Amino acid sequence: MNYHYSKNIKQDFDKVEKKVVESLAEVGFGVLTEINIQNAFKDKLNIKYKKYKILGACHPKLAHQALEDEPMIGILMPCNILIIDNENGSTKIVFPYAHSLLDITKNDSINDLSNEVDELLKNAFEKIF
Amino acid sequence: MNYHYSKNIKQDFDKVEKKVVESLAEVGFGVLTEINIQNAFKDKLNIKYKKYKILGACHPKLAHQALEDEPMIGILMPCNILIIDNENGSTKIVFPYAHSLLDITKNDSINDLSNEVDELLKNAFEKIF
Repeated sequence: MNYHYSKNIKQDFDKVEKKVVESLAEVGFGVLTEINIQNAFKDKLNIKYKKYKILGACHPKLAHQALEDEPMIGILMPCNILIIDNENGSTKIVFPYAHSLLDITKNDSINDLSNEVDELLKNAFEKIF
Repeated sequence: MNYHYSKNIKQDFDKVEKKVVESLAEVGFGVLTEINIQNAFKDKLNIKYKKYKILGACHPKLAHQALEDEPMIGILMPCNILIIDNENGSTKIVFPYAHSLLDITKNDSINDLSNEVDELLKNAFEKIF
Protein backbone atom coordinates (compact mmCIF):
# COMPACT_ATOMS: atom_id res chain seq x y z
CA MET A 1 0.00 0.00 0.00
CA ASN A 2 1.59 3.26 -1.06
CA TYR A 3 1.60 5.91 1.64
CA HIS A 4 2.27 9.06 -0.39
CA TYR A 5 1.95 10.81 -3.74
CA SER A 6 3.96 13.70 -5.12
CA LYS A 7 4.75 16.06 -7.94
CA ASN A 8 7.65 18.25 -9.03
CA ILE A 9 7.04 21.95 -9.59
CA LYS A 10 9.30 24.34 -11.49
CA GLN A 11 9.18 27.02 -8.81
CA ASP A 12 11.51 27.85 -5.98
CA PHE A 13 11.11 26.29 -2.56
CA ASP A 14 9.75 29.35 -0.71
CA LYS A 15 7.08 30.08 -3.35
CA VAL A 16 5.94 26.46 -3.28
CA GLU A 17 5.81 26.45 0.52
CA LYS A 18 3.61 29.57 0.55
CA LYS A 19 1.27 28.07 -2.04
CA VAL A 20 1.04 24.76 -0.12
CA VAL A 21 0.01 26.59 3.07
CA GLU A 22 -2.59 28.65 1.16
CA SER A 23 -4.04 25.63 -0.64
CA LEU A 24 -4.32 23.65 2.60
CA ALA A 25 -6.13 26.59 4.22
CA GLU A 26 -8.63 26.65 1.33
CA VAL A 27 -9.73 23.11 2.22
CA GLY A 28 -9.84 23.78 5.98
CA PHE A 29 -6.38 22.57 7.04
CA GLY A 30 -4.17 24.74 9.22
CA VAL A 31 -0.42 24.15 9.49
CA LEU A 32 0.22 23.51 13.21
CA THR A 33 3.83 22.33 13.10
CA GLU A 34 6.88 22.76 10.93
CA ILE A 35 10.13 20.82 10.99
CA ASN A 36 13.01 22.34 9.06
CA ILE A 37 15.17 19.27 8.45
CA GLN A 38 17.98 21.31 6.87
CA ASN A 39 18.34 23.47 9.99
CA ALA A 40 17.92 20.55 12.39
CA PHE A 41 20.67 18.51 10.71
CA LYS A 42 22.96 21.56 10.60
CA ASP A 43 22.40 22.31 14.30
CA LYS A 44 22.44 18.78 15.69
CA LEU A 45 24.71 16.83 13.33
CA ASN A 46 26.69 19.57 11.54
CA ILE A 47 25.59 18.01 8.24
CA LYS A 48 24.81 20.02 5.12
CA TYR A 49 21.42 18.87 3.81
CA LYS A 50 19.06 20.04 1.07
CA LYS A 51 16.00 22.12 1.95
CA TYR A 52 13.43 19.66 3.32
CA LYS A 53 10.44 20.74 5.40
CA ILE A 54 7.74 18.71 7.11
CA LEU A 55 4.52 20.69 7.55
CA GLY A 56 2.01 19.23 10.02
CA ALA A 57 -1.51 20.02 8.79
CA CYS A 58 -4.69 19.57 10.77
CA HIS A 59 -8.41 19.98 10.01
CA PRO A 60 -9.80 20.86 13.46
CA LYS A 61 -13.32 19.49 12.93
CA LEU A 62 -12.14 16.19 11.45
CA ALA A 63 -9.42 15.89 14.10
CA HIS A 64 -12.05 16.28 16.81
CA GLN A 65 -14.24 13.62 15.23
CA ALA A 66 -11.23 11.30 14.88
CA LEU A 67 -10.37 11.68 18.57
CA GLU A 68 -13.96 10.85 19.53
CA ASP A 69 -13.78 7.66 17.45
CA GLU A 70 -10.20 6.67 18.34
CA PRO A 71 -8.76 8.47 21.39
CA MET A 72 -5.14 7.46 20.70
CA ILE A 73 -5.14 8.65 17.10
CA GLY A 74 -2.98 11.60 18.16
CA ILE A 75 -0.12 9.14 17.56
CA LEU A 76 -0.90 9.56 13.84
CA MET A 77 -1.62 13.31 13.80
CA PRO A 78 -1.15 15.72 12.12
CA CYS A 79 -1.07 14.96 8.37
CA ASN A 80 2.45 15.61 7.14
CA ILE A 81 3.14 17.38 3.86
CA LEU A 82 6.73 17.40 2.60
CA ILE A 83 8.40 20.17 0.63
CA ILE A 84 11.75 19.10 -0.79
CA ASP A 85 14.25 21.07 -2.85
CA ASN A 86 15.26 18.93 -5.86
CA GLU A 87 18.27 21.25 -6.24
CA ASN A 88 17.71 21.50 -10.00
CA GLY A 89 15.38 24.53 -10.00
CA SER A 90 12.34 22.46 -9.10
CA THR A 91 10.63 21.62 -5.81
CA LYS A 92 8.89 18.38 -4.88
CA ILE A 93 5.71 18.28 -2.80
CA VAL A 94 4.70 15.03 -1.14
CA PHE A 95 1.24 14.38 0.34
CA PRO A 96 0.19 11.45 2.53
CA TYR A 97 -2.51 8.87 1.78
CA ALA A 98 -4.36 9.20 5.09
CA HIS A 99 -6.37 6.03 4.46
CA SER A 100 -3.23 3.93 4.14
CA LEU A 101 -1.58 5.43 7.24
CA LEU A 102 -4.71 5.24 9.40
CA ASP A 103 -5.57 1.69 8.30
CA ILE A 104 -3.44 0.50 11.23
CA THR A 105 -6.24 1.57 13.62
CA LYS A 106 -8.55 -1.15 12.16
CA ASN A 107 -11.43 1.16 13.07
CA ASP A 108 -14.24 1.50 10.51
CA SER A 109 -15.20 5.03 11.61
CA ILE A 110 -11.62 6.14 11.05
CA ASN A 111 -11.62 4.46 7.68
CA ASP A 112 -14.57 6.59 6.50
CA LEU A 113 -13.05 9.73 7.96
CA SER A 114 -9.67 9.14 6.34
CA ASN A 115 -11.31 8.96 2.93
CA GLU A 116 -12.76 12.41 3.63
CA VAL A 117 -9.32 13.69 4.66
CA ASP A 118 -7.80 12.25 1.47
CA GLU A 119 -10.38 13.95 -0.71
CA LEU A 120 -9.66 17.35 0.87
CA LEU A 121 -5.89 16.88 0.64
CA LYS A 122 -6.18 15.81 -3.00
CA ASN A 123 -8.11 19.03 -3.72
CA ALA A 124 -5.37 21.09 -2.07
CA PHE A 125 -2.67 19.15 -3.97
CA GLU A 126 -4.34 19.87 -7.31
CA LYS A 127 -4.54 23.62 -6.60
CA ILE A 128 -0.77 23.86 -6.19
CA PHE A 129 0.49 25.34 -9.49
CA MET B 1 -0.86 -4.83 14.87
CA ASN B 2 -1.06 -2.49 17.83
CA TYR B 3 0.43 0.95 17.19
CA HIS B 4 0.85 2.26 20.74
CA TYR B 5 1.42 1.42 24.39
CA SER B 6 0.64 3.49 27.46
CA LYS B 7 0.52 3.84 31.20
CA ASN B 8 -1.30 5.99 33.75
CA ILE B 9 0.72 7.99 36.25
CA LYS B 10 -0.56 9.52 39.48
CA GLN B 11 1.05 12.89 38.83
CA ASP B 12 -0.29 16.08 37.35
CA PHE B 13 -0.10 16.81 33.65
CA ASP B 14 2.67 19.43 33.74
CA LYS B 15 5.00 17.31 35.89
CA VAL B 16 4.50 14.33 33.60
CA GLU B 17 5.16 16.45 30.51
CA LYS B 18 8.45 17.74 31.97
CA LYS B 19 9.53 14.20 32.85
CA VAL B 20 8.62 12.89 29.38
CA VAL B 21 10.77 15.57 27.71
CA GLU B 22 13.71 14.82 30.06
CA SER B 23 13.46 11.06 29.57
CA LEU B 24 13.34 11.42 25.80
CA ALA B 25 16.43 13.66 25.92
CA GLU B 26 18.28 10.98 27.91
CA VAL B 27 17.91 8.54 25.01
CA GLY B 28 18.82 11.14 22.35
CA PHE B 29 15.38 12.35 21.29
CA GLY B 30 14.62 16.07 21.10
CA VAL B 31 11.06 17.38 21.06
CA LEU B 32 10.75 19.34 17.81
CA THR B 33 7.01 19.99 17.73
CA GLU B 34 4.13 20.31 20.15
CA ILE B 35 0.41 20.35 19.46
CA ASN B 36 -1.80 21.51 22.30
CA ILE B 37 -5.11 19.92 21.33
CA GLN B 38 -7.01 21.63 24.17
CA ASN B 39 -5.97 25.09 22.96
CA ALA B 40 -6.47 24.25 19.28
CA PHE B 41 -10.05 23.02 19.85
CA LYS B 42 -10.82 26.06 22.03
CA ASP B 43 -9.48 28.48 19.39
CA LYS B 44 -10.81 26.81 16.25
CA LEU B 45 -14.00 25.06 17.36
CA ASN B 46 -14.86 26.78 20.65
CA ILE B 47 -15.02 23.32 22.25
CA LYS B 48 -13.88 22.61 25.82
CA TYR B 49 -11.55 19.62 25.73
CA LYS B 50 -9.34 17.87 28.29
CA LYS B 51 -5.59 18.54 28.32
CA TYR B 52 -4.12 16.52 25.44
CA LYS B 53 -0.70 17.21 23.95
CA ILE B 54 1.11 15.64 21.04
CA LEU B 55 4.89 15.93 21.35
CA GLY B 56 6.87 15.27 18.17
CA ALA B 57 10.19 13.64 19.11
CA CYS B 58 13.13 13.11 16.79
CA HIS B 59 16.51 11.40 17.13
CA PRO B 60 18.62 13.41 14.65
CA LYS B 61 21.13 10.65 13.80
CA LEU B 62 18.46 7.99 13.25
CA ALA B 63 16.28 10.46 11.34
CA HIS B 64 19.19 11.19 9.01
CA GLN B 65 19.80 7.49 8.44
CA ALA B 66 16.07 6.93 7.81
CA LEU B 67 15.99 9.69 5.17
CA GLU B 68 19.00 8.15 3.41
CA ASP B 69 17.19 4.79 3.28
CA GLU B 70 13.69 6.13 2.49
CA PRO B 71 13.60 9.74 1.26
CA MET B 72 9.84 10.16 1.77
CA ILE B 73 9.84 8.93 5.36
CA GLY B 74 9.29 12.50 6.52
CA ILE B 75 5.59 11.65 5.98
CA LEU B 76 5.94 9.46 9.12
CA MET B 77 8.15 11.76 11.19
CA PRO B 78 8.52 12.69 14.00
CA CYS B 79 7.59 10.03 16.61
CA ASN B 80 4.54 11.26 18.47
CA ILE B 81 4.20 10.90 22.22
CA LEU B 82 0.82 11.70 23.76
CA ILE B 83 0.21 13.22 27.18
CA ILE B 84 -3.44 13.05 28.18
CA ASP B 85 -5.16 14.30 31.33
CA ASN B 86 -7.39 11.49 32.66
CA GLU B 87 -9.18 14.16 34.72
CA ASN B 88 -9.10 11.94 37.81
CA GLY B 89 -5.74 13.08 39.22
CA SER B 90 -3.75 10.86 36.88
CA THR B 91 -2.11 11.45 33.51
CA LYS B 92 -1.77 8.98 30.64
CA ILE B 93 1.32 8.77 28.47
CA VAL B 94 1.11 7.03 25.12
CA PHE B 95 4.12 5.97 23.07
CA PRO B 96 4.15 4.73 19.45
CA TYR B 97 5.36 1.36 18.20
CA ALA B 98 7.63 2.71 15.46
CA HIS B 99 8.03 -0.72 13.85
CA SER B 100 4.26 -1.04 13.34
CA LEU B 101 3.87 2.50 11.95
CA LEU B 102 6.89 2.28 9.66
CA ASP B 103 6.03 -1.20 8.37
CA ILE B 104 4.03 0.54 5.63
CA THR B 105 7.33 1.49 3.93
CA LYS B 106 8.03 -2.22 3.23
CA ASN B 107 11.71 -1.30 3.40
CA ASP B 108 14.01 -3.72 5.25
CA SER B 109 16.51 -1.01 6.25
CA ILE B 110 13.68 0.96 7.87
CA ASN B 111 12.51 -2.16 9.62
CA ASP B 112 15.89 -2.59 11.36
CA LEU B 113 16.05 1.09 12.21
CA SER B 114 12.54 1.17 13.66
CA ASN B 115 13.47 -1.61 16.07
CA GLU B 116 16.32 0.59 17.27
CA VAL B 117 13.90 3.54 17.69
CA ASP B 118 11.49 1.34 19.64
CA GLU B 119 14.22 0.18 21.99
CA LEU B 120 15.21 3.77 22.79
CA LEU B 121 11.61 4.89 23.24
CA LYS B 122 10.90 1.92 25.53
CA ASN B 123 13.89 2.96 27.66
CA ALA B 124 12.53 6.50 27.92
CA PHE B 125 9.03 5.18 28.72
CA GLU B 126 10.35 3.07 31.57
CA LYS B 127 12.22 6.01 33.14
CA ILE B 128 9.00 8.02 33.49
CA PHE B 129 8.03 7.65 37.17
